[in-house]
Amino acid sequence: MSKESEAQHRLGPLRNPAIDAAVLEATRQLLVEKGYAGTSIDAIATRAGVGRPTIYRRWPSKAHIVNEAVYPVLDTEQGADIDTELGNEGSMGDQVRALVQGAVRLFAAPATRAAAPGLMSELRSDGALRDVLLVRQLAGVRAELERRLVSASARGEIRDGIDVDVLLDILGGAAIFAMSVRDVDDPAPVAEALADIVLHGILPEAQASS
Amino acid sequence: MSKESEAQHRLGPLRNPAIDAAVLEATRQLLVEKGYAGTSIDAIATRAGVGRPTIYRRWPSKAHIVNEAVYPVLDTEQGADIDTELGNEGSMGDQVRALVQGAVRLFAAPATRAAAPGLMSELRSDGALRDVLLVRQLAGVRAELERRLVSASARGEIRDGIDVDVLLDILGGAAIFAMSVRDVDDPAPVAEALADIVLHGILPEAQASS
Repeated sequence: MSKESEAQHRLGPLRNPAIDAAVLEATRQLLVEKGYAGTSIDAIATRAGVGRPTIYRRWPSKAHIVNEAVYPVLDTEQGADIDTELGNEGSMGDQVRALVQGAVRLFAAPATRAAAPGLMSELRSDGALRDVLLVRQLAGVRAELERRLVSASARGEIRDGIDVDVLLDILGGAAIFAMSVRDVDDPAPVAEALADIVLHGILPEAQASS
Repeated sequence: MSKESEAQHRLGPLRNPAIDAAVLEATRQLLVEKGYAGTSIDAIATRAGVGRPTIYRRWPSKAHIVNEAVYPVLDTEQGADIDTELGNEGSMGDQVRALVQGAVRLFAAPATRAAAPGLMSELRSDGALRDVLLVRQLAGVRAELERRLVSASARGEIRDGIDVDVLLDILGGAAIFAMSVRDVDDPAPVAEALADIVLHGILPEAQASS
């Protein structure tokens, strides 16, 4: 490693993006090949062609590397990303279908299928991982979804009192169960059936066919 | 250990139920105290006061012990158990609420909250665990639920074409997400909100208020 890139690491924010990319790509490959438990920091370092200290300088644990390797960072500030991810145009049906398709697509990538349950398990005992996953990543999505539910409910487009947390439990939980546990080959029919139940589940009684 | 109980172990089916119970109770305690990753076979053996060989004679891996410690065995043969678990009386609303409450209650126990994501992760690389969890335990529930959906759909009590696998993705996935990831204190409001969305999600358009 060059003296210049060593300096970049110590500076933290000025990380060498090529090294980050190599580590994250090695992590995704190992997740698919060996599963979550079989993916070690040693194996990641070897595959990426970097030393263990280079990795520990960037990430506090394997779970944090895996998280960054499989999930997009959707900060609350990045409203545009969240809008795209949640689907913000068209009828309520179109919006729900876009939302469900986004969730299913997110968890359908091979490395994410391998990683999602392991990360769910680790965040129970890793407060820092919990902060990153639930506070920094999920909270922005939750806030935007809540804003839309309140607004759609005020316009009479969905029933009153839909619980935003339980809606996220359904979207995330069902997508992870279908992709990581049932390991379905084709995500499209799952997304369609899930969107169908969720849409009917939140529409006002009289508009359930819209 | 007595000569008699050693003989029982070798016979397999004639296992000493007191030893099984001690191991499973020790496992549940450790899951709550240390989490899934922190629960080792060594720690289970020490806590239960048995030797490692005694454990390995009964279970092929930690995941199999944890599975038996937190999930009921609902064999396809045990129709009565499955009927109770799924709720088989009253209106469609009552049945769905009983079904959802059963799922949420199952995943709300402290040891199960700690275990569920870890088991989801391990069954991806452990074919024997996959057979036990998905084939022996889940398949019976799925078959009974499918029978009821077909029958309710024929009677016009739910919409046609509800996907039984996606319905199970929703029930299991959402319950695990709420209990193990969000770690909600009170399961009752989650069960109520989930039943509300699922019920509206499967009822015929005209009966969504029943």
